Amino acid sequence: MAGAEDLKVLGTRQSMFTVRVLWALKLKGVEYEFIEEDLVHKSSLLLALNPVHKKVPVLVHGGKPIVESKIILEYIDETWKQRPLLPEDPPQRAYARFWAAFIDDKLMEAARKAFATTAEAQAIAVESTTEALNLLEGELQGKKYFSGGEEIGYLDIVAGWIAYWLQFIEEVGGFKAMDSTKFPRLDAWIKNFLQITSVAQNLPPPHELRSIFCAIQDAMQIK
Amino acid sequence: MAGAEDLKVLGTRQSMFTVRVLWALKLKGVEYEFIEEDLVHKSSLLLALNPVHKKVPVLVHGGKPIVESKIILEYIDETWKQRPLLPEDPPQRAYARFWAAFIDDKLMEAARKAFATTAEAQAIAVESTTEALNLLEGELQGKKYFSGGEEIGYLDIVAGWIAYWLQFIEEVGGFKAMDSTKFPRLDAWIKNFLQITSVAQNLPPPHELRSIFCAIQDAMQIK
Repeated sequence: MAGAEDLKVLGTRQSMFTVRVLWALKLKGVEYEFIEEDLVHKSSLLLALNPVHKKVPVLVHGGKPIVESKIILEYIDETWKQRPLLPEDPPQRAYARFWAAFIDDKLMEAARKAFATTAEAQAIAVESTTEALNLLEGELQGKKYFSGGEEIGYLDIVAGWIAYWLQFIEEVGGFKAMDSTKFPRLDAWIKNFLQITSVAQNLPPPHELRSIFCAIQDAMQIK
Repeated sequence: MAGAEDLKVLGTRQSMFTVRVLWALKLKGVEYEFIEEDLVHKSSLLLALNPVHKKVPVLVHGGKPIVESKIILEYIDETWKQRPLLPEDPPQRAYARFWAAFIDDKLMEAARKAFATTAEAQAIAVESTTEALNLLEGELQGKKYFSGGEEIGYLDIVAGWIAYWLQFIEEVGGFKAMDSTKFPRLDAWIKNFLQITSVAQNLPPPHELRSIFCAIQDAMQIK
């Protein structure tokens, strides 16, 4: 049954990520409609709502999709204030986020490797890098910054390494993914971003980055 | 110079993660003391402040360390309200977080693979899994839940897969990391966690998880 909120969860009841969302909504006492997904034959609805990852869970609130389980949890906590999931105090919030990330990134990754190890060649990874950049290019349509405004925001800061470090990673790694002809909006964003005083005053010189990336590569002895 | 806030940033000016933090503090107009780290010879201060990852950046505010760049950004945004970095509206916050995660997890990972590919054996990954569980065990000292209270919170929900799915991952993957004798607090947490009604009512049956993990393994043809 759809609640008064027009709230849907697309997922599978077998998915640990989906169930996190269900737990949170239950704890909040928020009603939702559950839409069971068949991950072997993904629905056109899922592909439309989560075109990047094509994954469950997706929370659909008033027609708007929210994806990625930890992000959905934060969304839920911000939208329905009752029964808070994150603590109120910023250091405690940071503590919770730190360990949540540790669990998903370190522990889950270690378990994933224990379960199945894979390896990919550089050409495939370059292709993936290019595909990822292409998606970001699409997000910049009609925008100066990722923030959507005349000033940079959080997302611009997180994306900042693309504007500067990536070129040295590519140079030392011997590949090229960021092509200014192919990605004119990203290219414009990089130029705008690097002109911001707070940004420009805190960039390491090129020779330091070249030196570091070369040292890392030497240490790994892969070239 | 230390500002009135007693705020320090441990990092290197070459680190894209450190510089995110510097940009944010600059945009906020918050003063801080910068402590340059030598990553080849990490300081005892860094190891004490970030014992899990032993990485920069670390934000130290009134003596308390905050680590992981995206989490530090959220901390900064919550602590100093001027010049917000994240939007105010929950769907927009989710949007920013989604793409930030995409950049760090998908794009950066693809670039990392383009830069250097590595492979690890199962034994090493099991050891890593065990080490990660051991750290979580330490965090449960004197606690019933990760929330620190009598009710579960966000971190418990994120950790929830350990309480249930991990056993099937281990079974199908042919390894064992979660040892109840070695990790008695985690074992107690699992039992308590699984008794919560909202949790217990949303667990998939064992045969479904076994079936799924076997199917995944068959598809990967690694056994």
